[in-house]
Amino acid sequence: MPKVITGTPRTPLEIVDGLAELGVATVHEAQGRIGLLDHRLRPIFPAKIAGNALTATVAPGDNWTIHVAVEQAQQGDILVVTPTSPCDDGYVGDLLADSLMAHGVRGLIIDAGVRDVATLTEMGFPVWPKVIASQGTVKATVGDVQVPIVIANQYVRPGDVIVADVDGVVVVRREDAASVLEKAREREANETAKRTRLQAGELGLDIYKMREALAAKGLVYEPYQGD
Amino acid sequence: MPKVITGTPRTPLEIVDGLAELGVATVHEAQGRIGLLDHRLRPIFPAKIAGNALTATVAPGDNWTIHVAVEQAQQGDILVVTPTSPCDDGYVGDLLADSLMAHGVRGLIIDAGVRDVATLTEMGFPVWPKVIASQGTVKATVGDVQVPIVIANQYVRPGDVIVADVDGVVVVRREDAASVLEKAREREANETAKRTRLQAGELGLDIYKMREALAAKGLVYEPYQGD
Amino acid sequence: MPKVITGTPRTPLEIVDGLAELGVATVHEAQGRIGLLDHRLRPIFPAKIAGNALTATVAPGDNWTIHVAVEQAQQGDILVVTPTSPCDDGYVGDLLADSLMAHGVRGLIIDAGVRDVATLTEMGFPVWPKVIASQGTVKATVGDVQVPIVIANQYVRPGDVIVADVDGVVVVRREDAASVLEKAREREANETAKRTRLQAGELGLDIYKMREALAAKGLVYEPYQGD
Amino acid sequence: MPKVITGTPRTPLEIVDGLAELGVATVHEAQGRIGLLDHRLRPIFPAKIAGNALTATVAPGDNWTIHVAVEQAQQGDILVVTPTSPCDDGYVGDLLADSLMAHGVRGLIIDAGVRDVATLTEMGFPVWPKVIASQGTVKATVGDVQVPIVIANQYVRPGDVIVADVDGVVVVRREDAASVLEKAREREANETAKRTRLQAGELGLDIYKMREALAAKGLVYEPYQGD
Amino acid sequence: MPKVITGTPRTPLEIVDGLAELGVATVHEAQGRIGLLDHRLRPIFPAKIAGNALTATVAPGDNWTIHVAVEQAQQGDILVVTPTSPCDDGYVGDLLADSLMAHGVRGLIIDAGVRDVATLTEMGFPVWPKVIASQGTVKATVGDVQVPIVIANQYVRPGDVIVADVDGVVVVRREDAASVLEKAREREANETAKRTRLQAGELGLDIYKMREALAAKGLVYEPYQGD
Amino acid sequence: MPKVITGTPRTPLEIVDGLAELGVATVHEAQGRIGLLDHRLRPIFPAKIAGNALTATVAPGDNWTIHVAVEQAQQGDILVVTPTSPCDDGYVGDLLADSLMAHGVRGLIIDAGVRDVATLTEMGFPVWPKVIASQGTVKATVGDVQVPIVIANQYVRPGDVIVADVDGVVVVRREDAASVLEKAREREANETAKRTRLQAGELGLDIYKMREALAAKGLVYEPYQGD
Repeated sequence: MPKVITGTPRTPLEIVDGLAELGVATVHEAQGRIGLLDHRLRPIFPAKIAGNALTATVAPGDNWTIHVAVEQAQQGDILVVTPTSPCDDGYVGDLLADSLMAHGVRGLIIDAGVRDVATLTEMGFPVWPKVIASQGTVKATVGDVQVPIVIANQYVRPGDVIVADVDGVVVVRREDAASVLEKAREREANETAKRTRLQAGELGLDIYKMREALAAKGLVYEPYQGD
Repeated sequence: MPKVITGTPRTPLEIVDGLAELGVATVHEAQGRIGLLDHRLRPIFPAKIAGNALTATVAPGDNWTIHVAVEQAQQGDILVVTPTSPCDDGYVGDLLADSLMAHGVRGLIIDAGVRDVATLTEMGFPVWPKVIASQGTVKATVGDVQVPIVIANQYVRPGDVIVADVDGVVVVRREDAASVLEKAREREANETAKRTRLQAGELGLDIYKMREALAAKGLVYEPYQGD
Repeated sequence: MPKVITGTPRTPLEIVDGLAELGVATVHEAQGRIGLLDHRLRPIFPAKIAGNALTATVAPGDNWTIHVAVEQAQQGDILVVTPTSPCDDGYVGDLLADSLMAHGVRGLIIDAGVRDVATLTEMGFPVWPKVIASQGTVKATVGDVQVPIVIANQYVRPGDVIVADVDGVVVVRREDAASVLEKAREREANETAKRTRLQAGELGLDIYKMREALAAKGLVYEPYQGD
Repeated sequence: MPKVITGTPRTPLEIVDGLAELGVATVHEAQGRIGLLDHRLRPIFPAKIAGNALTATVAPGDNWTIHVAVEQAQQGDILVVTPTSPCDDGYVGDLLADSLMAHGVRGLIIDAGVRDVATLTEMGFPVWPKVIASQGTVKATVGDVQVPIVIANQYVRPGDVIVADVDGVVVVRREDAASVLEKAREREANETAKRTRLQAGELGLDIYKMREALAAKGLVYEPYQGD
Repeated sequence: MPKVITGTPRTPLEIVDGLAELGVATVHEAQGRIGLLDHRLRPIFPAKIAGNALTATVAPGDNWTIHVAVEQAQQGDILVVTPTSPCDDGYVGDLLADSLMAHGVRGLIIDAGVRDVATLTEMGFPVWPKVIASQGTVKATVGDVQVPIVIANQYVRPGDVIVADVDGVVVVRREDAASVLEKAREREANETAKRTRLQAGELGLDIYKMREALAAKGLVYEPYQGD
Repeated sequence: MPKVITGTPRTPLEIVDGLAELGVATVHEAQGRIGLLDHRLRPIFPAKIAGNALTATVAPGDNWTIHVAVEQAQQGDILVVTPTSPCDDGYVGDLLADSLMAHGVRGLIIDAGVRDVATLTEMGFPVWPKVIASQGTVKATVGDVQVPIVIANQYVRPGDVIVADVDGVVVVRREDAASVLEKAREREANETAKRTRLQAGELGLDIYKMREALAAKGLVYEPYQGD
């Protein structure tokens, strides 16, 4: 039986917005290099957002469930859609994007296709699809909304935080969001200091004190004798 | 025996140009969601064109036939090239593009590679290739020109209309072009009205009166009880 | 045993810079259509560079060796990195890019992933990766630096010339670099003359005197009789 | 509007059966190296069959149309199924195979998935699918039966001959079937003679008199001087 | 911090063994067409097993964690391994298979590579890998054992039931295993009855009473008028 | 200019045959986990061979060079063929296989397609192709024979040893062949001893004394508290 779960938890937007500023690469490292969605999801234009996951499953070639999902949207959500078997059809176009924006949705993560990308770009509605494809869909089978899903190798629950930018898409569990934000900020501060040293020509070998460990691994330096 | 078919029919350019304005997604829906070429064909820069299909088959790694095709070109054509077995070589570069433009060709759809894309972009010659690749080709085997071909999952005949934009590429049969244009214009008018309602926050569930059908499918709403 | 070869030869930068101007497609044709890396390597932003190959192998999911490579860099190098088994992790981000730039490296060719692409774009550090991916790496296994490697179907030795632009990446053997530069310049001059004729509408069939050879291959012209 | 075309032509079974004996590689060469379906279609067990194409299109994830197709089957048909957009679901299992066999269908060519392959193998019902996959399908959208389709890069009409074996799948146009059968038999006779000579150690270079043409292409023989 | 969770629940083996008999396709349908792992996982030889999931994550190119997992094995387990980023290396060979068999493990599901397949086949140790690959691994990074994982598009927890056969791999949640077994048995009984009718030539159109619904969808039958 | 290098070195057959017995996985490990060709090359039937590499490059869709290569064959060679750009055509069928066998060639490694696989299997001529495909080739362009090539990610020179079995294909440099054989034999002896202990239920954790190193990496054991 298809179902919509109502009253699901969400992560406070001040935490969500903090994560958006830091971006995918930093957040991903800060939480221990986990949670990255497969890199096949790419943005249709450069953008950097975060939001609460509003999840949905869809049948192959059928976007009916997305209409159901719109009604569940809240300000600051990101719609996260996975087909029940792999499909490259264009599930979302400008009309659904209008509807999603009108209901406060900040963007769309979809392991399938999107269409009308010229219009979506003008509208400033960012999408991270697997492909750009116009192939239409029908409205005959209903999926689930606001249930835990697997998308692009990650497990995402309603209200987990999605961070998405040019580097890709990462999910942060809602119970970890606050602590990940803190660690990510520390990490960024730390990186700024390191970048200055590296830009000045200091070697990572010295900054990170790697020379001894490399020698222990047996690394040798040999003069060139032809190849 | 390789052959060139001469005197093939073409679709009138006023119909072709009308279809160009409407774009791939609208035309594709208007003709009943058929005719879309596989989404692996992507534009090298954003463009929106339509034209009469000037078809050619090429041997793998051999672009000789394209020189034969140029002579058959007429104002308003789009060259549509398919290899006889899958090949990613760069069949067309700036020289062939010069020649094609000089003969009125509006763009190139090719289920293979293209090269010199920086120059092609400066020239404003749009191409929808499978890949960008410099790998050269030879001139030893001749294919056919202006015969029906299969390209990227679609059957295309000379003079069928090709519409191509950022969303992909669609073919409209020449005998259907006038009626598809009409339906596409109706569809677009209809969509504009719907977009206004959706932007105002009305739900697709209500506009399309989906609630009863969804209930009939067994869709239920359940309160969250943890995940 | 992992090793670093020191004192490897390099191609003089005046030759390297000459090849950069001509670009991938011309250089590739000029050296007899060889040396092209697989087209899966694509630039993260439009750029056109050449440099001496600074080669490195890395273990899957492990970027330790890249820190070792930085120390071997010289002005005008391009870092060329291949994993010992296919891997899409993001081996290089903004910190390593800072370090590479500080040591004179002009860009990165990597048959794997890169991250922080928004920052790399701002910095003007060009990369030709297989994918954009944030997935982090560890520092536990050491590879080789400045040894001959196979990357994306080509054999590349330290000091071979890498030319990279929007069309892809080509390698020129260091002993061939001077003669390839000469041939590429001739080719370009020759192409300019041909482009003028083609832009004026002359046919390749006539310029290249193909009609007789095509007839010998059996090419026939037949009037359209329906399809 | 979905449709079933009735009364479509078929190729006489004595021609069909003759083509089955010769196999895919010989038939494909005999008709001028055309008509081969993409090699992604592979047999689930070694088999060698031919039959009249009984064509059907299916929506992604929806096998309803196949039930419609069964009723149109005649003795000696092969069911040929293409999804309207790429889909890897398992459209056919043991029940549909029972039904197809009961109606004289010799096998299934499908550019999608099949399941229950252990049972199909026991039953001796050969299938050339894209993948083996259990993912189920729904029955909500109807496609067309006995219309021309594009499948795996080829255009197939009802009653065209399908030949399938371990090498893959080839289509022969029904109007060409008799003449292709004749040419294929000649080719096979010719090949047997050549095989005897080649098995005895004669070189293709001599049998096909290639040496002069190779020299004309500039082929040179050079002694080894190290690599 | 890498971790091993001890004392995880398991599904009783009488339920597990019941599911093994029914096979993947039937179990998958019986639980509402969910839980199927991506079809890229294929058996190295025909086999039909079920077991309790013993889960592990591994770093790319690093099989150290599998040694840790062996110690946690119990009679009737199936080892289920997912890399933290996609990797095709050969994580398991005959030695680890010896060890797994000695500890009661019935087979291996791995979204990566396996090697020594000739020996594994002789031993009768079934594996469903993504690829067959000899590329070795290191032992430098530790993953987790007996934690919930995502593998090939599915979420699998320790003690969930894995069913695997020639059709692929399906996961059944441990809390659903008993009821799924019951439904799958009913389904199988029902299918046997239907198969008899279909083998006798009755049409699915009639057995499932589809004719009215098809007409309602607009399906029409038209006589052939050429193609 | 295409060329054939004559008088290239070969590895003595007693070394070659010794490597064949040990198989790909053992040889690959023994030489330090290098030299493995990409796993996309798979055997058309189970076989285990080794031989001296007889190398050739071919143009896409053109098998002319293979006829040239046959003349260069010696007893105990394996033909190793790489296309100059990726191509899936069926370059070799039963006739060329007859010719190759008659000249002492033990098998074929080809990063492209092969056809007539039923006949090749009856003949006992093993092939490791990328795909099985009947698509024919022409004879218009000549490549090189007995030059160093890159195939499936590896650099192979004439006379390097190719070992191929169900696990894949590995290349051993001819200058390393004798020492690799020795190391591989030691490795195998060592493995036999370890297999006995593992079959008896001893843990790798103990045999390889891993517990301390794992603890140093921070591995912890935690009791299950739900998931």
